[in-house]
Parts: sequence; C-alpha cells; structure tokens
Amino acid sequence: MDAIVALCRRRGFIFQSSEIYGGINGFWDYGPLGVELKRNLKDAWWHDMVKCPPEGPDGHPVDMVGVDCTIIMNPKVWIASGHVAGFNDPMRDCKTEGCKGRFRADQIQQYQCPLKPSKCPGEFEKCQLTDARQFNLMFESHAGAIKDEASKVYLRPETAQGIFANFRNVVDTSRVKVPFGIAQQGKAFRNEVTPRNYTFRSREFEQMEIEFFIRPESAKDYYTFWRDLRYNWWQSIGLAGENLQLREHDKDELSHYAKEGAGTSDVEYRFPFTAPGFGELEGIAHRTDFDLRAHAEHSGLGDRLKYFDQEKNEKYFPHVIEPSAGADRGTLALLCEAYTPDESRPSKVYMKFHPRMAPIKAGVFPLVNKDGMPEIAHKLYMDLRSRWNIEYDPKQSIGKRYARMDEAGTPYCFTIDGETPGSNTVTVRERDTQSQQRIAIDKVKAFLAEKIG
Amino acid sequence: MDAIVALCRRRGFIFQSSEIYGGINGFWDYGPLGVELKRNLKDAWWHDMVKCPPEGPDGHPVDMVGVDCTIIMNPKVWIASGHVAGFNDPMRDCKTEGCKGRFRADQIQQYQCPLKPSKCPGEFEKCQLTDARQFNLMFESHAGAIKDEASKVYLRPETAQGIFANFRNVVDTSRVKVPFGIAQQGKAFRNEVTPRNYTFRSREFEQMEIEFFIRPESAKDYYTFWRDLRYNWWQSIGLAGENLQLREHDKDELSHYAKEGAGTSDVEYRFPFTAPGFGELEGIAHRTDFDLRAHAEHSGLGDRLKYFDQEKNEKYFPHVIEPSAGADRGTLALLCEAYTPDESRPSKVYMKFHPRMAPIKAGVFPLVNKDGMPEIAHKLYMDLRSRWNIEYDPKQSIGKRYARMDEAGTPYCFTIDGETPGSNTVTVRERDTQSQQRIAIDKVKAFLAEKIG
Repeated sequence: MDAIVALCRRRGFIFQSSEIYGGINGFWDYGPLGVELKRNLKDAWWHDMVKCPPEGPDGHPVDMVGVDCTIIMNPKVWIASGHVAGFNDPMRDCKTEGCKGRFRADQIQQYQCPLKPSKCPGEFEKCQLTDARQFNLMFESHAGAIKDEASKVYLRPETAQGIFANFRNVVDTSRVKVPFGIAQQGKAFRNEVTPRNYTFRSREFEQMEIEFFIRPESAKDYYTFWRDLRYNWWQSIGLAGENLQLREHDKDELSHYAKEGAGTSDVEYRFPFTAPGFGELEGIAHRTDFDLRAHAEHSGLGDRLKYFDQEKNEKYFPHVIEPSAGADRGTLALLCEAYTPDESRPSKVYMKFHPRMAPIKAGVFPLVNKDGMPEIAHKLYMDLRSRWNIEYDPKQSIGKRYARMDEAGTPYCFTIDGETPGSNTVTVRERDTQSQQRIAIDKVKAFLAEKIG
Repeated sequence: MDAIVALCRRRGFIFQSSEIYGGINGFWDYGPLGVELKRNLKDAWWHDMVKCPPEGPDGHPVDMVGVDCTIIMNPKVWIASGHVAGFNDPMRDCKTEGCKGRFRADQIQQYQCPLKPSKCPGEFEKCQLTDARQFNLMFESHAGAIKDEASKVYLRPETAQGIFANFRNVVDTSRVKVPFGIAQQGKAFRNEVTPRNYTFRSREFEQMEIEFFIRPESAKDYYTFWRDLRYNWWQSIGLAGENLQLREHDKDELSHYAKEGAGTSDVEYRFPFTAPGFGELEGIAHRTDFDLRAHAEHSGLGDRLKYFDQEKNEKYFPHVIEPSAGADRGTLALLCEAYTPDESRPSKVYMKFHPRMAPIKAGVFPLVNKDGMPEIAHKLYMDLRSRWNIEYDPKQSIGKRYARMDEAGTPYCFTIDGETPGSNTVTVRERDTQSQQRIAIDKVKAFLAEKIG
C-alpha cells in the first residue's frame, strides 16, 4: 500500500488536505490526475444509471431521475431517520500516561497501542481503557446567528435521506411511476473516531446512491436485480479480477430495518490494507418502507407520503432497494487495481486503468521540439481534445514522457517523428504491451473512438 | 419572479430543502430537471476551462489543471486567509416586542420590518435596533470526539483557499509552468445573516473557481484576458441579451488585497428581484500575491512556497487572477433568461434554454400508443440516448406532451405517427418557433448533432 500512496502523492492523484499546515486527520484532496479519475467514475455512474438507465427485469429501461440535495438539512430529517438517536460508535479512551488513544470498542482488537515504545505491551487488556461510551458520528454546526439547540444542524452522514425527503416532490413533478429510482451524488460527513486506511475511511467522502422504489411484493426480484447489476458494473469499469467479490450479509449483520427484508449484500474489494480480507465498495440493501414511514410519521404528513397507484387505485408506502456506493472508495479501488509493478520499465510501475477511467486518454508528443513536429503534434492535440482528455507534451526524452504516461495510466501515446511529414503516419505506443505501431495520422481519431469510446 | 419560482417548483427544477419539515432557511435542493441543468452548466465550464482551456494572449491554450479539495480543512488555512479575523458581516438585532428581526447593518435600508402589522411604521430608525455587531459568516463544527477550541473546524466559505493550499503540490507533481491555472468546482458555505432572493444568496452554494498564476508584470494583460473571456463565456451559453453586463469595480469597492491590483470586475445578471439593478454571477479579481504570501508566512514554509522559474533562475510569488463564478447563481440566471411567457401556448410559457444547457435535449413520442408506433419510438430513443439526454413519453395527448417539453425547455420533439412506418419519416417540432417538419428517421441523429453538438 505504501508504494501506491507514494505514487498517488508523487503524481498528483491524492494529497493530504491542508498538507502545508500538517494536514488534518481524515481529510484528503484530489490532485490534477485524481480529480479526473474520480470525475470519470462519477460520470460513468451517472451515465449508466441515470442518463441511460439499465433494463429492468421486464426488459425495459427502468425509470430513473436525479436530484441534488443540500448537505445541511432541517435537523428533523435526522431525528426521523434515527441518526440523532442511533448513529453512534461505541468509543473507549485509554487513560494510560501519555497515550490519549481513542478506539472503537467494537474494533479494539484491530488497533495497536499508539505509544512508542508501548506502555501497554502485548494486549489492550493491560491498558487503562474507559468503558465504552456512545459517540454520535454526525458533524454538528449551527445555522443562523445564535448558537443554541434551536439552531443546531448536522452535516448529512448519508445522501439517502435527501432523496426520501424529496420523494413526494419528485413523484408530483415528474412522471415516474413505481418501479422507479431517484439517484444522487454528493458529499457526506462522518466524524469517525479513528479515520484510517487512506481515503477508505475518511471523515468527508462522496456517495453515489440510488433509492429504487418498488411494490413490496417485488422486493426479492429487484433486490437480486440491483445486486447483480451493480456487481457487474464495477467489473465493467476495470475491477474485473479476483479482488472484487459480492458478499451476502449474514442475518446477524443486518441493519434494524433490513431484518425483515429480502437481503443486504456488499460489493467488496480486496484492498492491500484489508487483504486477505475485503472492504466495502457498495452496499445493496432492501430498506423495506422504513424511511418513508419514518418521514410520514415525523413530518405529520402521514398517508400523504404514500404513493398512489392510479391503475390499481391503491395507496401504499413503496419498498426501497438501495444501491449505495462510495465514490472515494471506488476511486481508491481503481487506483489499487491499476497499480502494476514492472521492473523492466523506466517507471518501474504502470497504472493499468480501464480506458474509460483513465484520467488522460492519450498523450500527443513531437519526438523532438523542432523540424515541424511540434506544429503537427499540436494540431493533432487540438483535433482530439474536444472529445477526449489529451496531454500534449513536447519536453524531455520520449522515454521519460512514456514513463510519465505509464504512471498516469494513459492507455495510448501518439508520437510525431521524422517520418510523419513524409508519410502522414504517427507511432501509437500501447501502455500495457509497450508495443508500437505506425498508423495514419488521419486514422488516430477512429483508433481512439474504437479503443476508448 | 414568483412565476419563475412556481414553475421551478412545479416542474422539478428547484425545491426547498427539507420541505416536508417546513424547509430550512437558506437551503435549496435541485429536482430532476434542475440537477441536469446545473450539471450541464458545471460540465460546460469544466470542458471549456480545464479539458479544452482557452487560448491565452499568446495564441496557445493556457495550462490548466483541476483539483478537488475538502470542505473541511485545517483551520489554520482560514487564519492565514484572514477569514477567521475578518469574514464578518455587521449585524443589528431589533428589540421591538415580538420582532426578533436580524438585519445586515450595511443593507438595513433594503429590509422591511418583518412584523405584520409592523410595529416600526415608516422607517427602521423607529425600531429598537441594537448597535452593529460583527458576526463571522463561517459555519463552525468540531472534528474528533472532543468539542473544544483545538478541535474546532470550519466549513469552507470559498473554494479558492484549497487551491492556494495545494499550489506547491500541484507545481511539484504536474508539469505546469507559470502562467497556469488551477480550477475547482465544489460547495462552500456562508452562514448568511439574511439568506434571500431564492437561490441567489443561500447558505450552501457551489462555486466554479480558477486561480490563474502569473508573473506580476503580466497582471494587467491576464486580468483583461480573463475578464473578457469569462464575460463572453456566459454569453455563449445563452445569457446573450441585455440582462448580462460586465462591470468594473470602483476603487472604493475593492477588497483589501485588490487595492493595488490591476482591477476587479463582476459579470452581472439582471435578475427579476434585482431589476433594474444587477446581481453578481462571477467576480474576476487580480488577487496579487496576497494569498500565497499569507500561506507562506502562516505555514512557516516561507520562500519554499515561491515558484521557481527554471529559465530565468528566479524565485518569486506569482500573482493571481481569479475568475470565481457561482454555479447556483449561474443556474438561476439560466432559468430567469429562459423563462418566456407565451399566452398562445397551452403551457402559457416556455423555457428557452440554450441547447447546450437544456436538461432534456429531445423528446421522442409515439403519436398514439399502438399500431407499431411505440416500438419505433422506443428504438429511436434507445439509439439517441447514449449521446444525449432524451425523454421517451408515450402517454397523454401530443399537445400535452409538447406543453410539458416547453416547460422543461426541451429544444426538439420527434413524433412517430401513422406516416412513419410507410415513409420512415418523423416530425420534428421546434420549441421556439413551434414549427414542425418531417425528416427521415435515419437523419435524426445528424439533425441533433448539428443543432445540439
């Protein structure tokens, strides 16, 4: 993992937030390459789930619309959802001289004593740990000029509740009919007791969530539909190997609302820091009608939050299948999966991104910065860039430029060389095989369109 | 303005956040149409500024990279930037019985007494107003389990400082050379004393900012370059009329750091609620080297935050030109500009969005839901949707469907009718003129590519 973190820092995928001030625990920034990688992931999700939604069990594309809700909502949302009362981690503090360690009580076995040299040798049982206390994970703030209970607000710990709170509005203003989905991407915040594992468990993170509303009796069908579809989707963007798995939850893992449901499963990735275990990328859960009922009760709207089925002349609370994915965890999995050591290369490593995810789709290089080559290369760059993310680079040796593109995970490099003016051909260098071939310069666009889309 | 707000609510552009709980002052959600409109604006900005950056004064595309920084940063960032000490609004409270009004002291003339009937008849001078007090506009929270001064954090009031804090990292890890820009989109928060004017002054909003780093002596050139370019950009996406203006700031309006600068100007839009005045969409400011110097001093990095010019063998703090745009204000301006009453239409109004901004690019309708028409229409929809946002709608009368698309601002509707199976043609209905013509069904893609891009 250290090598991946180092590459991400060195090449501008991920930086510590506020690094020049010593950072801040649990917060990470995306640099120039990272922001493009994460955008590609988020855009692919929006394209495949909202713009071109998948065909449902009946063979027709499912109804899907998007929303974009605020991070700060009326705090009653979080009372209704159960987060104010119950979104807690049990926490234990270490009172051992000089330690001040704080640990999740349910994960205490996974920690090491932070004292160096440890004053709690061997096992945590020898430390002076407090009893477990409940610690709410929502960040609190105040909206308005006066800081009191009445002005207290929370940063959303999940994007889902913004969707539930807008369920009625969406049904009333668009033409969706059950079954249909509402999708959202956006940031959420959890004041984790111990943020760790790089961007895997951070305090500020981004979600990509769908709440898919269905008739209660079709829960089983749609649960398996979304579970399998989302698993396949992660495979389709490059997590195709044995590091990806789909895992059905055991009964005793299930959330309170899911106990009666059709199931809960996780799409998991074997990160270097979880190996040989796996870490969650996305959860697919049958949330029953728990959330809509809770908002119906707490808002006082009652049956007015029910869905009205015109054909059957029937009002009911739809059940919900929720595929909830982490954009930062997805980005991290793409980085881990792509990282491919190769001692034979100058860069010693290359990033084998799926072409759809690669931050830069192609490099365009004049072999030397003279003899008309820069002009031809620049023209090609200008011709390609409106469709793809292209890097034009006229500097350094061609080997160094290929090495930079290997580290950035750029699938193709086009080099304009001495033969180009006479033959109207360029070399294409392929990232994974390092093979080179010549193609006509006016075929470059078609080449990329075929390879990248 | 009321009519625009009503349409936005009715058609699912914008909802009050947490509406089912009575809302929350200063927070707004985007519904299914609104989220697509705002995405189009943000994607166009990223495409035109980062992916295909504009040609600079020398005729070559400027260097531009993106970043994506956290909303919560190390609080020292905000000490260095001056926000902890100085990001205040002067505020006055009304002590009149039953009022509890709170007003910005510098805008007191613009308010009305909120008491109905007013107990402060005529003028505010008769109210029992407190003296002005300074109120810091940053939302505060705490990161970590203990709430004390040491754990206090802020929600960023602007995205700019994340860029400055990453200046060194970006220079070290990418190959940018002065002049170059760093771009970012993301949410920011300001605890406005009196949020108002719909989404124009809300407490949670999204920015699209560029910090463009230059040699100090080229400040004047780049200031005028970015000022004019950004003004033209807003025109290019549909704000082409007389409601858009570029306004150079007077000397006495300038920020503390801008007093010595090459200038500050605003791209302004005449919103219905500001008319006959204008409201700011984007500010273009020469920020000098104020921010980089401040972070150099407060981080203790000093000269290590300077930029090293290899060719000139010279270290210096670059100056900055900042084009800082509001994504929500831009979206609101697009909505206001598009709103076009037309009593002759069933919808009485249509939304004349620029095709690039329109949430839905085309509707595809079977005239009636039988005789093979739905199958042909559905096939056309599936053929178009991977490239454009398309609505397939087989229900209701064709007039009602056109009316819905007029309100959504959909530029084109394709209707499959009784002639289609025999002639392989469809009708195209154009939103602005309501004209209809027949075109070959296999020419629809080329038609849209030409009209929409």
